[in-house]
Amino acid sequence: MTQGEGWLDELTWTPDGLLPVIVQDHASGQLLMFAWMNREALAETRRRGEAVYWSRSRQRLWHKGEESGHTQQVREIRVDCDQDALLLKVEQVGGIACHTGRASCFYHRLGDHDVWEVAEPVIKDPRAIYGER
Amino acid sequence: MTQGEGWLDELTWTPDGLLPVIVQDHASGQLLMFAWMNREALAETRRRGEAVYWSRSRQRLWHKGEESGHTQQVREIRVDCDQDALLLKVEQVGGIACHTGRASCFYHRLGDHDVWEVAEPVIKDPRAIYGER
Repeated sequence: MTQGEGWLDELTWTPDGLLPVIVQDHASGQLLMFAWMNREALAETRRRGEAVYWSRSRQRLWHKGEESGHTQQVREIRVDCDQDALLLKVEQVGGIACHTGRASCFYHRLGDHDVWEVAEPVIKDPRAIYGER
Repeated sequence: MTQGEGWLDELTWTPDGLLPVIVQDHASGQLLMFAWMNREALAETRRRGEAVYWSRSRQRLWHKGEESGHTQQVREIRVDCDQDALLLKVEQVGGIACHTGRASCFYHRLGDHDVWEVAEPVIKDPRAIYGER
């Protein structure tokens, strides 16, 4: 551990060394996504001023926007009263956080008849964001 | 499983049968808290129209506000693109979500010198909310 990382020690990491991260648009308050960070991801996020997560599926650091260009400029980092959940307030470059080309990943709303309904439009075709894959 | 619970089956529960839940004020957009639900908690939340969580520390259902009176009236339930994180938009009764008597549990902000600073005032003394314990 290097000097000056005391703020990282004050957090309550899971046994796997992770913290859940809630990501919110700093201006509109819109919830954008939910992800995870390990200690290295959070330190890197702080250093860069851009969100870097831990991808549990790929088991590696994931610099958000590395493929899409839709990086997240960090305006504020908060932690909750149990020190076990983070809130990032960000400026979302491109206005698109979701890999489906929507502003937010939380685009399904539970409707009156207990059916998940799509509640947010696609802003940009994912094929135009990521290329044909 | 009873009829009409298909919407619960579309969610991706952890191996422990849980889902992370982000709770946001429906009007202001303020992030209030972060919690967990199991299937029963979510079904009960839907039935009551008030937030019911799974308390991992107490290993039981936790009807938010059962002691404090600070219940959460659910205005909308959303799920993310991976179906593994929920967003509740609520009306926070009493305007206090945190057991410390603050509006939000996310009251620590990482300051310029990498120190966690208190960024939200106490609205009501917890002893007045919960009584002397």
